[in-house]
Amino acid sequence: MKPSSSTSELFRPLFGDPIVDAELGDRAWLRAMLDFERALVVVQSHAGIVPVDAARAIVAAIDSAVLDPASLGARATASGNPVVPLVRDLVDVVPADARAYVHHGATSQDVLDTAASLVAFRALRPILDGLAGVADECERLAVRHRDTLIAGRTLGQQAVPTTFGLKCAGWLVAVDEARERLSTVRAERLAVQFGGAAGTLAPLGTAGASLADRLADELGLVAPVLPWHTDRTRFAELAGALGSAAGVLAKIAQDVLLMAQTEVGEVEEADGGTSSAMPHKRNPVRAVLVTAAAKRVPGLVATVLASMAHEHERAAGGWHAEWETSTDLLRLVGGAVHGTWELLARLEVHPEVMRRNLDLTGGLPLAENVSTRLAPALGRSEAQDLVAEVCREAVATGSSLLDALLADFRVQEHLSADEIGEALDPSGYVGSAAAFVDRALVAHQRKAER
Amino acid sequence: MKPSSSTSELFRPLFGDPIVDAELGDRAWLRAMLDFERALVVVQSHAGIVPVDAARAIVAAIDSAVLDPASLGARATASGNPVVPLVRDLVDVVPADARAYVHHGATSQDVLDTAASLVAFRALRPILDGLAGVADECERLAVRHRDTLIAGRTLGQQAVPTTFGLKCAGWLVAVDEARERLSTVRAERLAVQFGGAAGTLAPLGTAGASLADRLADELGLVAPVLPWHTDRTRFAELAGALGSAAGVLAKIAQDVLLMAQTEVGEVEEADGGTSSAMPHKRNPVRAVLVTAAAKRVPGLVATVLASMAHEHERAAGGWHAEWETSTDLLRLVGGAVHGTWELLARLEVHPEVMRRNLDLTGGLPLAENVSTRLAPALGRSEAQDLVAEVCREAVATGSSLLDALLADFRVQEHLSADEIGEALDPSGYVGSAAAFVDRALVAHQRKAER
Amino acid sequence: MKPSSSTSELFRPLFGDPIVDAELGDRAWLRAMLDFERALVVVQSHAGIVPVDAARAIVAAIDSAVLDPASLGARATASGNPVVPLVRDLVDVVPADARAYVHHGATSQDVLDTAASLVAFRALRPILDGLAGVADECERLAVRHRDTLIAGRTLGQQAVPTTFGLKCAGWLVAVDEARERLSTVRAERLAVQFGGAAGTLAPLGTAGASLADRLADELGLVAPVLPWHTDRTRFAELAGALGSAAGVLAKIAQDVLLMAQTEVGEVEEADGGTSSAMPHKRNPVRAVLVTAAAKRVPGLVATVLASMAHEHERAAGGWHAEWETSTDLLRLVGGAVHGTWELLARLEVHPEVMRRNLDLTGGLPLAENVSTRLAPALGRSEAQDLVAEVCREAVATGSSLLDALLADFRVQEHLSADEIGEALDPSGYVGSAAAFVDRALVAHQRKAER
Amino acid sequence: MKPSSSTSELFRPLFGDPIVDAELGDRAWLRAMLDFERALVVVQSHAGIVPVDAARAIVAAIDSAVLDPASLGARATASGNPVVPLVRDLVDVVPADARAYVHHGATSQDVLDTAASLVAFRALRPILDGLAGVADECERLAVRHRDTLIAGRTLGQQAVPTTFGLKCAGWLVAVDEARERLSTVRAERLAVQFGGAAGTLAPLGTAGASLADRLADELGLVAPVLPWHTDRTRFAELAGALGSAAGVLAKIAQDVLLMAQTEVGEVEEADGGTSSAMPHKRNPVRAVLVTAAAKRVPGLVATVLASMAHEHERAAGGWHAEWETSTDLLRLVGGAVHGTWELLARLEVHPEVMRRNLDLTGGLPLAENVSTRLAPALGRSEAQDLVAEVCREAVATGSSLLDALLADFRVQEHLSADEIGEALDPSGYVGSAAAFVDRALVAHQRKAER
Repeated sequence: MKPSSSTSELFRPLFGDPIVDAELGDRAWLRAMLDFERALVVVQSHAGIVPVDAARAIVAAIDSAVLDPASLGARATASGNPVVPLVRDLVDVVPADARAYVHHGATSQDVLDTAASLVAFRALRPILDGLAGVADECERLAVRHRDTLIAGRTLGQQAVPTTFGLKCAGWLVAVDEARERLSTVRAERLAVQFGGAAGTLAPLGTAGASLADRLADELGLVAPVLPWHTDRTRFAELAGALGSAAGVLAKIAQDVLLMAQTEVGEVEEADGGTSSAMPHKRNPVRAVLVTAAAKRVPGLVATVLASMAHEHERAAGGWHAEWETSTDLLRLVGGAVHGTWELLARLEVHPEVMRRNLDLTGGLPLAENVSTRLAPALGRSEAQDLVAEVCREAVATGSSLLDALLADFRVQEHLSADEIGEALDPSGYVGSAAAFVDRALVAHQRKAER
Repeated sequence: MKPSSSTSELFRPLFGDPIVDAELGDRAWLRAMLDFERALVVVQSHAGIVPVDAARAIVAAIDSAVLDPASLGARATASGNPVVPLVRDLVDVVPADARAYVHHGATSQDVLDTAASLVAFRALRPILDGLAGVADECERLAVRHRDTLIAGRTLGQQAVPTTFGLKCAGWLVAVDEARERLSTVRAERLAVQFGGAAGTLAPLGTAGASLADRLADELGLVAPVLPWHTDRTRFAELAGALGSAAGVLAKIAQDVLLMAQTEVGEVEEADGGTSSAMPHKRNPVRAVLVTAAAKRVPGLVATVLASMAHEHERAAGGWHAEWETSTDLLRLVGGAVHGTWELLARLEVHPEVMRRNLDLTGGLPLAENVSTRLAPALGRSEAQDLVAEVCREAVATGSSLLDALLADFRVQEHLSADEIGEALDPSGYVGSAAAFVDRALVAHQRKAER
Repeated sequence: MKPSSSTSELFRPLFGDPIVDAELGDRAWLRAMLDFERALVVVQSHAGIVPVDAARAIVAAIDSAVLDPASLGARATASGNPVVPLVRDLVDVVPADARAYVHHGATSQDVLDTAASLVAFRALRPILDGLAGVADECERLAVRHRDTLIAGRTLGQQAVPTTFGLKCAGWLVAVDEARERLSTVRAERLAVQFGGAAGTLAPLGTAGASLADRLADELGLVAPVLPWHTDRTRFAELAGALGSAAGVLAKIAQDVLLMAQTEVGEVEEADGGTSSAMPHKRNPVRAVLVTAAAKRVPGLVATVLASMAHEHERAAGGWHAEWETSTDLLRLVGGAVHGTWELLARLEVHPEVMRRNLDLTGGLPLAENVSTRLAPALGRSEAQDLVAEVCREAVATGSSLLDALLADFRVQEHLSADEIGEALDPSGYVGSAAAFVDRALVAHQRKAER
Repeated sequence: MKPSSSTSELFRPLFGDPIVDAELGDRAWLRAMLDFERALVVVQSHAGIVPVDAARAIVAAIDSAVLDPASLGARATASGNPVVPLVRDLVDVVPADARAYVHHGATSQDVLDTAASLVAFRALRPILDGLAGVADECERLAVRHRDTLIAGRTLGQQAVPTTFGLKCAGWLVAVDEARERLSTVRAERLAVQFGGAAGTLAPLGTAGASLADRLADELGLVAPVLPWHTDRTRFAELAGALGSAAGVLAKIAQDVLLMAQTEVGEVEEADGGTSSAMPHKRNPVRAVLVTAAAKRVPGLVATVLASMAHEHERAAGGWHAEWETSTDLLRLVGGAVHGTWELLARLEVHPEVMRRNLDLTGGLPLAENVSTRLAPALGRSEAQDLVAEVCREAVATGSSLLDALLADFRVQEHLSADEIGEALDPSGYVGSAAAFVDRALVAHQRKAER
């Protein structure tokens, strides 16, 4: 093995997924470029532009081509992209009289933009499968924990009770939204590119426009209105959709990290990472790596967006900046998706700890319920002020809110001991939690049926 | 005037549009917050949760509320958002027995998220109108210049001829894509938020979920499956769509800047900016300001995406980071849209200079056409090599390509002087340019009809 | 008050600091622009380029100028920056024979770049003062809690004991690094800009270069080697230094947020924010707002960096994109600095809760210490394996690590009950914590003395 | 060759430099990690903590270690970083009685942070060499073209004359600033990391702090005041400095791209890229690739900054997000540096075209000079108004400014034909251009001597 200048093997497994990554490597890119060249000669042959024999010879050459990414990459620097040497290598193995029909009418950007679309189209398959897996895990958890009480926390503080099922239902809805958007971008926005040197397809006379449509059919991509060589909205939308998806996954990982903290202990990764120095630790490694992958996404999205102002008929840099950036985006989101799937599939949930944490403050998260029940008699602000005072008292004296309320004559005037106890029962104060869970499950089922 | 700490007046007019900005200021935000509180009491009154008299009193108080942004802002720091003082001010002006029904069951985030959606919904109206205006100008230019020859330029170099109409058609398609996406986000993704303290709507018992749907109806926003307080895909998609739109506008401005260069001179801003020191200059000021606004967008999109991992039931910072960022995004895209509209509406186009530039190199942009015509006889690579040699010769000796071709016996063997002349006529080498323009126009018409 | 299109009053107080903001508003920018024009005429008068009477008249006009930011902003759109109308307004109030000497030899960018440097120079004063305040609070906490035990946490899990003092010492060192860098940028990189229309100072003949040096003296800014109109490293370094500072403050706020969680409870904001709906809550509002401000910084730094490729002798957009972006950066870091200062000044620290949390797992954070003590006898890996087994046993049976170790005959072979107890005493396993705190304090003292 | 999932070979050569890349690959990272482990055992042996025989055995094992990046990467996912399997592999090849001393007292982050610092330290060597090369080329061009006239262009419009030498001097100063900052970061900020599990170095008792200092000596890195595991200012400053450098290089590439445009033609890349379809083209490939690399940098800098808020004693994601991001930053800046060096070394400069372009508008860039010369007689504004009128006349009638001025009686009153001719000689209106070039050269020499 020659001294490698890439960091692909040491760090990439941490942030990617092998199945997604297989659609993103040099081989996948080369296959997609060859797919374009092959489809091009096929449709031009059908259109009578390329003689059948020449087409057959070129297809045969493409199908048996053995390409060396390293050699192509090294030679790419002369022209600024790997298509020029790729076409040269193809021409070299094609019979002399077929050579003029290789890459006929096309320009490097046609090949690379179509290849980039194919690469994204293919990599999005396992990414969407992974998101479906994540959604299914969220659904499973939402169903199982539909009524599992947990502290609802705002700004890091216990606020009022909620259910772990509703938390999972919230993840589910967000994941389904991310899937839907990515799925739409995949089906409706990834298009074939065919415009020739400057978007006019001049060498093909006026036959160009219809050929572009046939190419799209042949490759299973969208047929665009126009060559989109300098209209980058397609990749910008892809980047945006990947950015949203990363944010959704980061939120799940974040919640897991917070719930898995030693002092919280509500969930843990079933086979969390071990630490050589600290034998007792069970690290939430998957949640950490999902978080790390997701953190790298917004900057890359910004790069795609900041590169959109392509000059004239081909950008002097903005186009070239997309290739590795889009690949990295797909790779990182692919890793985050599959990491989250595994994370949720193996998540150990501790409902009893959730409940214990909810009781930690002696009923404070139910304070809102007490003031709500006092409001009709006292007025809202007065009720709130009174309950706030009792809460402060409870906190100061270290007593539970129950005891503090029972001890306050003003409260007693309006609420009986039973009513106070009822007000402090968290299971009676989760409002629409179950109804919301059910809505999320129904919505998810509907999406799954489509 | 008290010493102002804002830079709103000195720099903002450069990067915003007054009509869009009017939907984004303190007043617009306060109106949207009050709209939420008003709709809340209305639907709760219809649902029998708030007595009619109390509802009437609260609505009256809201409709006559005189709020002071500066005072609200100053008091906002105690709770971390301006809703707490806003509700306090409302309660103060409501009759005592109606007070308990102000903001009933809601939390600050319900108000701010719904207000942010309303603000975006309203600001997107003039933004979409502006994009329609930009598209119309692109259409006008594409129609008028359908056959206006111009050099197609790749990597800054003249490549082959194209038409200015096709360039404008390319802008048109991209603008229509940006419009469509923003329009979809506006109609389908901007939703009401109503979840209460932690998303369960606990104080409303099980009535909450249906109330959220009625609130959406009342406010003209989407009814979400669940409260989305910690699912930020809606704003992430908005940010992404604004990012794409900015990129599309930046490309138009960039093309104008390049064509307006002194040495190119193909277009100019009809009443371009003047320079105090250089009286002869006519600066492409609008294109410059559109470019500047667009350059600021990707970083802000990254901020929105990087803030998506909201903790538990309310984020400790990620939520707060959205407010000014989303406002800035709408403001900058609003400014870029209207700047581009004005830019195109007043663009002076010089077809004769476009043609003169195309002739600048004595026919070199037609070299591809010559080699295409020689290819059948010589083979593609050989034809290219030969033409490349003649081109180099022409460049070295300063002669035109025509003369150099006429002087080359190898060329003469296969092409007559007439054929060479024909090959060097740019109007005969624009392929599908006109057909593509027509496709773009048809596609635009179809979108307009919807 | 006319309907305002700015969001300055409602949201800005949340993310800014009034003293810093006062250096960043329209008035501050106008003052800085006038300072340039004033210094320019002063040094040109000393150099004999402007007659004394004219200089006196211009200085008087500047000193008594009443400028209207809104009017200047509105008129700025014609030329693309507010300097053109500013100079026009100045000329209008200057006696006729002095008019030719207003803004003599200068271009708009000279004024705006120098003004931006002055604005940054002035705003950095209270920012650096604030950072000094933050550092002092860190120092105070590090001294007081030099030996306060707390769980060291990695990936959210309790790992081994550390001290709260060392945590604060870590903050201290980072804050001092951020201060030092910002201080260097302020003193060494903020420079006067004076190059005229294209950087040659042509209207001044060959006198220009030395005038630039005198201008720098007059304004207290650095004298650059060359006009730096298209070399943006100065503002890029400022942005980078502000970005680092924001990250340092975000780390402090993050730690506070995590320690303030209900289930952790080790610190709280003395007068944390209240919640209207939840009377018992004491929200870590300052930490939340610092976090929010800091989250907005990286995207803005990216904008500054992405705008550096200024075209030729003046950028067509990249320059204009800096003004509000740099102002926002200073504003947000200013807010984060002062928010952190206040946060730390009023932080309530609960050492007893820190200790209680450390004991939560029955000694597991000391497992490393036990295996270290067993290693000489058993070998490192074997010792780790044994302790890991005992830890798992303890976790599974719910016993403390102490009991589990005492019950294991293999442990007993090598460690007595006393030795086990000693190994499980966290105060005996904080290594160099105190020494490190002392190093940080000494380093801080040294910096303070400079 | 197994199916590769990396894109390292196809695209990386376009955006990197082989010599820099060799310092950034898997092998370079592994070497740096081993360097840490080696230095650790060496200093612990000198300190009497590790027996000499054990140290010798471990050093021997490290020196002969054959590590497989792919295997380490695959196993890294369990613990979240490649250090755990690396240490395991090392322990496996060390004699049993030395095993306890491998990685003694260290944690994974100690290894990775120190390795990241070493990798950066080593990669910055060829990056700084490259910047020195770029600076030398700028110096060479500035000297040679000290008096070569060229149009100074602002907002894309010819403004006033300048010299190509001054343009190159501007590049030179910026490059030297970027070098200086990167050089300072390399020498003063890249530090050894040694803190153990949570920064206390507990297993080493109180010996830890001094060991950290010796480690720094051994490795040639800075000795930090404290372990900086959660203080990321060092890498943030590195990222910021790389970001500034990228911006400086992007500016040079941008200027070259603009000057190389077909219609401008003032420079060209000596052996610019060829186009398969367009044989006459000579693409500015290097400038394009430098631009592309630089465009990818700001988003990555934002990622580093946004990841700075490390939680407690080890970040749950923010740390992990740095590894590939920092590597990419070094790689892209390395590529941009060496691309720019080659670009400038082979730049063909056409002074005669520069001059021809300057004459393109018949003297308009000298308008400022005419109004300056008329100002003493007419007043500044009046002079400007008059000249502006004559300029408009000249543009409208297509005459040169010379003819238009000669034809205007108001001008004739104050300026003779000779004086007008003199005013329109660009070589007489470059002010301090030559003086500024000389200042830049002197400053560069001074830096070189240090």
